[in-house]
Amino acid sequence: MTALTTASEDVARLTRWADDFPEPGVTFADLTPVFADAKAFRDVIDALVDVGDGADLVAGIDARGFLLGAGVALALDAGVLAVRKAGKLPPPVLTREYQLEYGTASLEIPADGIELAGRRVLVIDDVLATGGTLAASAELLTAAGAEVIGIAVVLEIEALGGRSRLAGHPVTSLLRV
Amino acid sequence: MTALTTASEDVARLTRWADDFPEPGVTFADLTPVFADAKAFRDVIDALVDVGDGADLVAGIDARGFLLGAGVALALDAGVLAVRKAGKLPPPVLTREYQLEYGTASLEIPADGIELAGRRVLVIDDVLATGGTLAASAELLTAAGAEVIGIAVVLEIEALGGRSRLAGHPVTSLLRV
Repeated sequence: MTALTTASEDVARLTRWADDFPEPGVTFADLTPVFADAKAFRDVIDALVDVGDGADLVAGIDARGFLLGAGVALALDAGVLAVRKAGKLPPPVLTREYQLEYGTASLEIPADGIELAGRRVLVIDDVLATGGTLAASAELLTAAGAEVIGIAVVLEIEALGGRSRLAGHPVTSLLRV
Repeated sequence: MTALTTASEDVARLTRWADDFPEPGVTFADLTPVFADAKAFRDVIDALVDVGDGADLVAGIDARGFLLGAGVALALDAGVLAVRKAGKLPPPVLTREYQLEYGTASLEIPADGIELAGRRVLVIDDVLATGGTLAASAELLTAAGAEVIGIAVVLEIEALGGRSRLAGHPVTSLLRV
């Protein structure tokens, strides 16, 4: 079996699905048990590493993307860039605002102390849903001069069509539901 | 040089200090540039791994502890348990409330899907300040039947005396300021 197939099976087996969370009508995928399982965590990281060939920096999205981004970065011998929710980083920061269903949110990275121009970055999160957060992350990194070489997630909720918002980037998901 | 010494130097060199963040009078340690540096990230993980000998699960605290916990878990061939801020996990959850300077906060872990009884857990966060979050995490895990074999952080702010709130656990910090 390939790393991708093995990881897909782990994710399908261990993901905890919850109806009506965080609000009525939404079904939430809790990957906590996947990460807490030593074999599954290793399998998932191995599969994501296969996508990241050539990356010299891994961007993990606040907060669950940190778990994956850090593991992949370590395996690739790269650093991990924490893409933060607004208000978590001291100024100066680079900011990208994006639309939520109601209102807006922002992502931030430090504007100094980390050289991003010309860096080859793999962007990682746990779930691809509507794609808004991942699209904003890729735009933020591109605006900072980095080259986004790919986007990788564990779980893709196909019905929400997030992949279409990430056009122009190779997108890999370990399991599509 | 030992892994600890090397990591200490990386952290001292790359940490970005910010006065009056997130509020006046507070000095904030932003470790983002440490994690984004491939060598420093590797050195930090190597040094933390030395502390985690014998752990079969690594608990990372929401959110920056995820970056470290995941790296250490991978290096130890363990899983990583995400200790979440309140409201991030669907029920059922185990909860531990703790005091902040004004008001309270809560930490949560899933109440099913992850066996914790008898597990040997290393608890990891980026900064040890007042120690409230780390103490609550250790209590939460202990209440779930796990054995907390140690607590490890990158940076310890000694003046805040957090170590005294973690009595009974071995506490390791890579750099004390």
